[in-house]
Amino acid sequence: MKVIEVKKSVTLDNDEDARVLQEELKSKGVFLINLMSAPGSGKTTLLSKLITDMNDKHKIAVVEADIDADVDAAKIESVGATSIQVHTDGMCHMDTGMTRTGLYEAGVLDEESSIDIAFLENVGNLICPAEFATGAHHNMMILSVPEGDDKPLKYPLMFRESKTLVITKADTLSYFTFDVDKCIKRVKELNPDIEIFVVSAKTGEGMSELESHLETLLKNFL
Amino acid sequence: MKVIEVKKSVTLDNDEDARVLQEELKSKGVFLINLMSAPGSGKTTLLSKLITDMNDKHKIAVVEADIDADVDAAKIESVGATSIQVHTDGMCHMDTGMTRTGLYEAGVLDEESSIDIAFLENVGNLICPAEFATGAHHNMMILSVPEGDDKPLKYPLMFRESKTLVITKADTLSYFTFDVDKCIKRVKELNPDIEIFVVSAKTGEGMSELESHLETLLKNFL
Repeated sequence: MKVIEVKKSVTLDNDEDARVLQEELKSKGVFLINLMSAPGSGKTTLLSKLITDMNDKHKIAVVEADIDADVDAAKIESVGATSIQVHTDGMCHMDTGMTRTGLYEAGVLDEESSIDIAFLENVGNLICPAEFATGAHHNMMILSVPEGDDKPLKYPLMFRESKTLVITKADTLSYFTFDVDKCIKRVKELNPDIEIFVVSAKTGEGMSELESHLETLLKNFL
Repeated sequence: MKVIEVKKSVTLDNDEDARVLQEELKSKGVFLINLMSAPGSGKTTLLSKLITDMNDKHKIAVVEADIDADVDAAKIESVGATSIQVHTDGMCHMDTGMTRTGLYEAGVLDEESSIDIAFLENVGNLICPAEFATGAHHNMMILSVPEGDDKPLKYPLMFRESKTLVITKADTLSYFTFDVDKCIKRVKELNPDIEIFVVSAKTGEGMSELESHLETLLKNFL
């Protein structure tokens, strides 16, 4: 597993750069999903479960972005996906140039690459990542039950910018005060078209629905 | 309860501004604590418990910083502290000028104010708030058990910049895989002098030790 340092890109127009990367990936048949959440929401655990379940049908790569450490990339490698750890040198988000570097180093952009799904696990942060295009075709966000059902009120942009919301750690719903219906209502008020899944990577609850959703997204993309 | 909009300060030297605010608060006998954590770690719940327990001996004010919403300030008011909600207009952190505005609007800087402890509940984010001085005399961070014991590896600056770490939601230790000893070891490697408390605001576990610590800090400050 490789660890690389990336810094803020020098690109003048990140949005234009994102459009170019989207096209480039499309021409190679790679669907890029930008996974965003607060720290500790269970992004890596969810990804590990998705990879384990979908590995037989797809070739999956993951770009793990963090300020420091390489614990996430190591976990992803252990379940059999291509993985690269990107250090952002203190930066609180990824942009397109940084994402491109991660994808390149992970081999996703290689001529002979057979990767068809790539995940960018963005820096754990509910604010800054929502403000920067990464070149991903789909923004997916995670909200874990222990974080509370008031998060849509506090971090509206992240919920507006996401096309899929995965509510994770559903196995802890009996323990925490988290009103799923109220949360979904708050999210839909910000973003009526968002698709929402309630899952537990630990018990497997809701995972097959989420995986069918990913298959549909991929089918519509190709 | 008042809600105010604050934006990035125009101050050229935030660090110098922070020193000035620290002195100004000291001359008024106000101890300012900057409380930082990821979204949903339980900052407001911990504060509510501290206020309930310490209200008889102290006059406490809270500046609640968020991108949006006023749910936290409403909770704080309900337990009897002075509270003001500050909206950061998308900004991912507070700086000294923004903090000063919040304190001013909360009445903490008034001639006749009798507040002796003020809390700044910073924006929920483990990255950006660690980079900006706020004028606080003490940085306190919260890490909740559901977030995981690997956070010191991923967000080292926040752990380095804090003088007190409160590990919250200790009542969920039996449910989540969180190695307290390993976590403390990781934190101490980054910051040998940090003081660490393991608490549950829900069950009250560890709260008296944390409150004694706050009393000691306040005594040494005055």
